[in-house]
Amino acid sequence: MIGDPLPTEKLEGQLLSKRLALPIFASDPLSSVAYAPQELLMILLVGGLAFLSFAPWVALAVVILLVTVVASYRQLIRAYPSGGGDYEVAHRNLGEKAGLVVASALLVDYVMTVVVSVASGVDNIISAFPGLAPFRVELAVVFVIILAAINLRGVSESSKAFAIPTYLFIGSVAIMIVTGLVRTIFGDAPVAESAQYAVHAESVGQAAMVLLLLRSFASGCSALTGVEAISNGVPAFKRPKVRNAQRTLVVMGATAIVLFAGLTTLALVSGVHYAENPCDLIGWTECATSPQPSLMAQVAAATFGDGSIAFYVIQAATALVLLLAANTAFNGFPLLGSVLARDSYAPKSLSTRGDRLIYSNGVIILGLAAIVILVVFQANLTVLIQLYIIGVFVSFTLGQTGMVRHWLRELRGLRAKDARAAKSSGKSGHRSAAEQHRRAAEAAAARSKSADDAKPLTHSAMVRALVINAIGAGMTAIVLIVVTITKFTHGAWIVFLLMPILFLLMLGVNRYYRDVEQEIEPDPTTVFGSSGDHAVVLVGRMQKPVLKALDYAIAARHESIEAIHVSLDEEATKQLQKDWIKQNIHVKLRILSSPYRDLSHPLIQYLKERRQDHGSEVITVYMPQYIVGHWWEAVLHNHKSRRMRQKLLLVHGVTVALVPWLLDSSDLLYGRRSRPLPGQDRRGEAVRQVARKPGGVEIKDGRAHPKG
Amino acid sequence: MIGDPLPTEKLEGQLLSKRLALPIFASDPLSSVAYAPQELLMILLVGGLAFLSFAPWVALAVVILLVTVVASYRQLIRAYPSGGGDYEVAHRNLGEKAGLVVASALLVDYVMTVVVSVASGVDNIISAFPGLAPFRVELAVVFVIILAAINLRGVSESSKAFAIPTYLFIGSVAIMIVTGLVRTIFGDAPVAESAQYAVHAESVGQAAMVLLLLRSFASGCSALTGVEAISNGVPAFKRPKVRNAQRTLVVMGATAIVLFAGLTTLALVSGVHYAENPCDLIGWTECATSPQPSLMAQVAAATFGDGSIAFYVIQAATALVLLLAANTAFNGFPLLGSVLARDSYAPKSLSTRGDRLIYSNGVIILGLAAIVILVVFQANLTVLIQLYIIGVFVSFTLGQTGMVRHWLRELRGLRAKDARAAKSSGKSGHRSAAEQHRRAAEAAAARSKSADDAKPLTHSAMVRALVINAIGAGMTAIVLIVVTITKFTHGAWIVFLLMPILFLLMLGVNRYYRDVEQEIEPDPTTVFGSSGDHAVVLVGRMQKPVLKALDYAIAARHESIEAIHVSLDEEATKQLQKDWIKQNIHVKLRILSSPYRDLSHPLIQYLKERRQDHGSEVITVYMPQYIVGHWWEAVLHNHKSRRMRQKLLLVHGVTVALVPWLLDSSDLLYGRRSRPLPGQDRRGEAVRQVARKPGGVEIKDGRAHPKG
Repeated sequence: MIGDPLPTEKLEGQLLSKRLALPIFASDPLSSVAYAPQELLMILLVGGLAFLSFAPWVALAVVILLVTVVASYRQLIRAYPSGGGDYEVAHRNLGEKAGLVVASALLVDYVMTVVVSVASGVDNIISAFPGLAPFRVELAVVFVIILAAINLRGVSESSKAFAIPTYLFIGSVAIMIVTGLVRTIFGDAPVAESAQYAVHAESVGQAAMVLLLLRSFASGCSALTGVEAISNGVPAFKRPKVRNAQRTLVVMGATAIVLFAGLTTLALVSGVHYAENPCDLIGWTECATSPQPSLMAQVAAATFGDGSIAFYVIQAATALVLLLAANTAFNGFPLLGSVLARDSYAPKSLSTRGDRLIYSNGVIILGLAAIVILVVFQANLTVLIQLYIIGVFVSFTLGQTGMVRHWLRELRGLRAKDARAAKSSGKSGHRSAAEQHRRAAEAAAARSKSADDAKPLTHSAMVRALVINAIGAGMTAIVLIVVTITKFTHGAWIVFLLMPILFLLMLGVNRYYRDVEQEIEPDPTTVFGSSGDHAVVLVGRMQKPVLKALDYAIAARHESIEAIHVSLDEEATKQLQKDWIKQNIHVKLRILSSPYRDLSHPLIQYLKERRQDHGSEVITVYMPQYIVGHWWEAVLHNHKSRRMRQKLLLVHGVTVALVPWLLDSSDLLYGRRSRPLPGQDRRGEAVRQVARKPGGVEIKDGRAHPKG
Repeated sequence: MIGDPLPTEKLEGQLLSKRLALPIFASDPLSSVAYAPQELLMILLVGGLAFLSFAPWVALAVVILLVTVVASYRQLIRAYPSGGGDYEVAHRNLGEKAGLVVASALLVDYVMTVVVSVASGVDNIISAFPGLAPFRVELAVVFVIILAAINLRGVSESSKAFAIPTYLFIGSVAIMIVTGLVRTIFGDAPVAESAQYAVHAESVGQAAMVLLLLRSFASGCSALTGVEAISNGVPAFKRPKVRNAQRTLVVMGATAIVLFAGLTTLALVSGVHYAENPCDLIGWTECATSPQPSLMAQVAAATFGDGSIAFYVIQAATALVLLLAANTAFNGFPLLGSVLARDSYAPKSLSTRGDRLIYSNGVIILGLAAIVILVVFQANLTVLIQLYIIGVFVSFTLGQTGMVRHWLRELRGLRAKDARAAKSSGKSGHRSAAEQHRRAAEAAAARSKSADDAKPLTHSAMVRALVINAIGAGMTAIVLIVVTITKFTHGAWIVFLLMPILFLLMLGVNRYYRDVEQEIEPDPTTVFGSSGDHAVVLVGRMQKPVLKALDYAIAARHESIEAIHVSLDEEATKQLQKDWIKQNIHVKLRILSSPYRDLSHPLIQYLKERRQDHGSEVITVYMPQYIVGHWWEAVLHNHKSRRMRQKLLLVHGVTVALVPWLLDSSDLLYGRRSRPLPGQDRRGEAVRQVARKPGGVEIKDGRAHPKG
C-alpha cells in the first residue's frame, strides 16, 4: 500500500487589484442610489409639492455627510488596517460592550442588506414589467433562495461576472444623468409620468416641518449604506494595502456622490412625484391597481423614453447591481465572523480558513432570516429601509465615536512625548517649533505600524481627522435618533429586540470560551500516566474495511489485541465465525450478545468491565471510516459508527482510531479544486492549488519547507 | 486516571398493552370520522338535496369496505407479523418494484396525514371560534411547527397524555350520537343550522349521477385512512403479539364504524347541508364572510346547543385527536424507514435503534413538506383529502393484491403437499376427506412460523381470506381509479409526480449499497500488510487535552513518535517551545511553517513526504476531541479538528486516533436518560435504562453476559 507519487500542491494567494476590488466593495453603496433619492423625495412630498423646494438642501446635507463618512473611513483604514472595521475601533476605544453592540448592529445590517437590496431589485423589475406586481413577495423570496444557493455552491467574487453589472450600472446611470442634463440645457427637459399628478398634502405645523425635513434627511442617508465595507476588507488588497484601499474608497465615494446628486437633480428637473401611499397622487386613477414605478424607472423612462432599450438596460443594471449588493452580505459576514472568532465572540471555527459546513449554515441562516423579514413586511421597501438605517447608523456612530477617542488618545500621547522630549532636551535650550514638529513626526512614524503607510501623522493632521470624525459622529447620531423616534412603532422595535439577543449570545460565547480555557490550563494537580495498551477491532461482517482496520491494529503492535463482534443476527454471526477461520486470522474473535438490537451497549459494558480488571490501561478501538466523493454519500455511510464512537469516547481510557476506507468515488476528492468559500476574496485568503512536480517538501532544521 | 465504579446500566424493553396501543394506533383512523361524513355528504349535495337520499347507501358501502379492509389486515397481520405491513406484502408477493411503489405511496401518505389532520383540526377550531377564520393557514403552519418541535424534543407515545384525547373523543362523540338518536326517537330531533338553506344544484345527467355517487363513495372512504398502521406496529405489542394486534385492530375498526355510521345518520337526521362552495347554500347571506362550520360542529351544536359546554368539548376533543393523528406520521415514518433500511432502500442508519440526528432530519423534512403543501393549497380540506386518498389507496390496493397472491401461493403449496401426501400413501388406499383435511391442517401448522399463532390455517380458511382480500383489492382499486380521474387536474398530479421521485431515490439507494457491497467484498487480489508504526501528536497550545493525547500516544508504545505543531503565530509558537521545555517532555517537537494560515496543508505535505521516505508504514495521528454535555457546545468545539481529520484520512497509511477530553459539562451525559425517539414505541424498541449495582457483566465462554 505504498502511496502514489501525487504531484505536490502549492498554495498561491490571490489578492485584489483596485479594479477588481471596486465592484466587490462598491456594489452595496452604489446600489443604494437606487432607493435613496426615492425615499428622500417621498418623505418630503408628505408635506406637499411645496416641500420639494427643500430637496436640494436635504440632498446637499446627505452629500456632506457622505463626504464626511468617506473621509472618516479613510482615517479608520489607516489606523486599523487589519480589517476589523467599526467593530475593532469600538472594541479598542470604547470597550468590549460597545464593540459587541457594533457587532450585533452589523449582523442585523447584513440581513437587512439582503432584504432591502432584494426588495428594491424586485421593485425595479416590477417597474419594468408591471404585470408581475402581484408576485412581489414571491419574487423576492425566490431571489433570496437563488442567492443562497449560489453561495452554498461557492463562487469567487473576484470573477468578472461580478464586475460587469457594477460597471454597467455606473456607466448607464451616468449616461442617463448626462443625457437628462444636456436635454434640460437645450430646453427639452425630460418629464416624468408622475409629474402631472398633484400630491395630497397634510397640513404641517412648524415643528412637524422640521421633523419632516429630518426624516427626509434620514431616509436620504440610506445612500450611505455599504461605505464601511472596505474597512473590513483591507487585508484583501494588493500592497500597499492601506493606500489602495483608501483610493478605492475615495473613488467609490465620489462615484456614489455623483450618481446620487445627479439622480436627485434629474428627478427634481423631471418632476418625479413619488408618494408613500400611491393614492395620495391626485389624478392617478390606477393608483390601487397598478404598481407605482420606482424613481429610477421614471427618470429612465423620462430621459430615454418609456419602453426604449435604454430604459430596460437601466432597469436590468439596477436590478443586477442590487442583487450583487445582496450577495455582499453573504460574503461580508464570514469576515465579521472571523474577526469576532479571533476575539472569542464567535465559534473558533470561523477564525481560520473556512469550514464549509459552518459557512453553509451561516448562508442558510442568513437566507432564512431575510425570507422571514421579507414575508412579514411584504417586501415593502419604505418600511424595510427604516429598519436598515438603524443598524447601519448604530455602527457608524459608535465607529466614529471610537475614532474620536482614538485621536484624542493619540494626541495625548503625542503631547506627552513632546513633553518628555522637551524635558530631555531642556539643557540644549528650547527648540524651534518646526523642530519640535519634526520630532513629533518622527515619533509618529516610529509608532506607525503599517509598513506601507509612508506618511507620518502630524499633529495638525490628527486634529483634522479628529474634527472630521467628530462631525461625522454627531451627524450620524442625529440620524439615528430621528429614525428611532419616528419609526419605533412601525417596526424599528424589531431591530432593538434582535440586537440585544445577538449581543448576549456573543458575550455568552466569550465567557464560555474563557471558562474552558481556564479548565484546560495545565496545572500541577492533574497527573498523566497511563500504562497498558490494549487494542480492540470492531468487526461487523467480513469485509475489506474491517480487514484493513485489523491490519493497522496489528501493525501498531499493541501489548494485546482482540476483535469484537456484537451479535445482532445469529446467522450473520455464524457466517462471520466461519469466515474468520477461513481467512486464517490469528486475532481472537470475541462475540458479545445483544438482547435489544443495541450495538453500543454490550460493547461499552465489556470495556468498562475490562477496565475494572486491568486498571488504567489505554484501550484503542479501531473502527473503519468510509471516505466518499459525493456529498450525498455521507448520508448513507458512517452514521452508526459515529454514534458508536460518541458513546465509546465517554468511557475512561478509550481512544478511537479511525481507519479510512476509500470508496471508489473518493477519487473525486483527489482531483477536486477547493471550491470558493464565501468572503474569501475579501479576507485576502483566496488561494489556488497549483500542481507542481513531485519532490515538494524538504525538511530543514526541524521545519518543513517547499522545495524549489 | 482509573475509572469511577459507575453503576452498571441495564436495558429493559417496554412493550405495549392493548389499552395503551389503542390510542397510539387508533387516533389516525378514528380522527378521520371528523371529515369523512362531511366530504361524503358534500359531494352528494353537488347534485342537489334529492341526492341526500343516496347517502345511507353510500355510507353503507363505505362501512362494508371498512369491514373488508379490517378483515384483510387481520389476515395480513397473521401472515406477516414482523411489522412490514403493506410494503412487505407487496415486496414479497408482487416484486421489488411493487414494494417500492407502496413505499413511495406510504411516504406521501405520511406527509398527507399531517397535512389533512392539521387542516381538519384547524377547521374545527375555526368552527368553534369563527373570528380566527382569516388565520386558517397561519394556524395550520403553527400547529405543524409545534408538532415537529415536540417530536424533535422526543416524547413517548405511550404516555397517558396521548391516551386521554383519544378516549375523550370516542366518549364524547358516542355520547353525542346516542343523545341525538334518543332525542329523535322522542320527537325532538336536533336541527342543524344549515338545514334551513336550500342547495344550488347542478343538473346531473345519468352518467354524471353514477360518477357523483362514486366520487361521494371515494370521499367517504377517507374514513379508512390509518387502518393499516397496526400492521406496521405488531412487534410493539406484548405477547401473544399477533393476537393482541388483531384484537386491537378489530376494536379500532368497530369503533370507527360505529362512530362513522352514527355521525352520518345524525347528520342526515339533523339536515346538515355542507357545500363545497359555501355560497351554493341558498339563503345564507354571510357565505362570503363567515367560515362554513364543519359537520362535526354543526351536529354538536344541533344536539347540545350552540355555545354549550358540550359543544366546545367536542370541538376540543376533535381538534386534539386530529393533532394526535398528525403526530402519528412523525412516529410512523421511522418504522417505515427501518423496514426500508433493512432491505437497503434507505440509509442503513435507520435500521438499528435510532440516530437522533437522522430522525431529527426526518422530522424536519416531514414538517417542511407539510408546511409547503398547506401553504400552497391554503389549508383547503376538500382538495387535500383527494391527494390523501390517492396515496392511501395505492398502498391498500397493492397490499391486498399482494395478499391475494400470497393466498394463491399458499393454496398451491397446500394442494402440492396434499398431492405428495396422497401419492406416498397411495398404497394404503385413499383416505377419507376428513383425514386429508386433518393432514393438511397439520402441514399448515408445521409451516406456520409464528409461535403464538395457535390456530392453523385450513383450506377453507385460506379460501375465505382470499375472497376477502380479493373483494377488498377490487373495491379499493375502483376508489383509486375514480379519485385519480376526477381529481387529476385539481392537484392529484402532484402525488403522481412525488411518488416516482421517491421510487427512483429508493431504487438508487439500493443499487448504490449493492455496488458498495461488491466493492468491499474480500477478494484475493487485495493484500494487506503494513509494516512500520509511527505516531504523530498534533499540538496547538500547551493545554491538558494535548497532554492527554501525548500520554496515550506514549502509552501505545509505537516504534517512533513525534509531536507536530503548525505555526500560525510566531508568538504562540515561541511560547509553546518554551512550555515544551518547561514541562520536560521527551518527545521531539517539530514545527511546520504555514504561509497562508492553513492548518492542514503543511501537515499533509509533511506526512506525504515522510511516506515517500519510509514506505508503507502506518502513521497514527493523535488528536484531542472535546466531549461536551450541552448540544450548543458542539457548535463551539471540534470543527477545526474535524476538517483536519477529513483531510488527513485521505493520505495513504494514516489512521486518526481521537483522544477524548471530557469538559466539565459532560457530566450531564452520564446521568442523562436517553430521550425518547420518534416511533420507538411502535417498533417495540422503547428501552429504559435501569441502574444496577456494580459488577454488571461477566464474561463466560467468550460471551459477555449480565451478572445477576
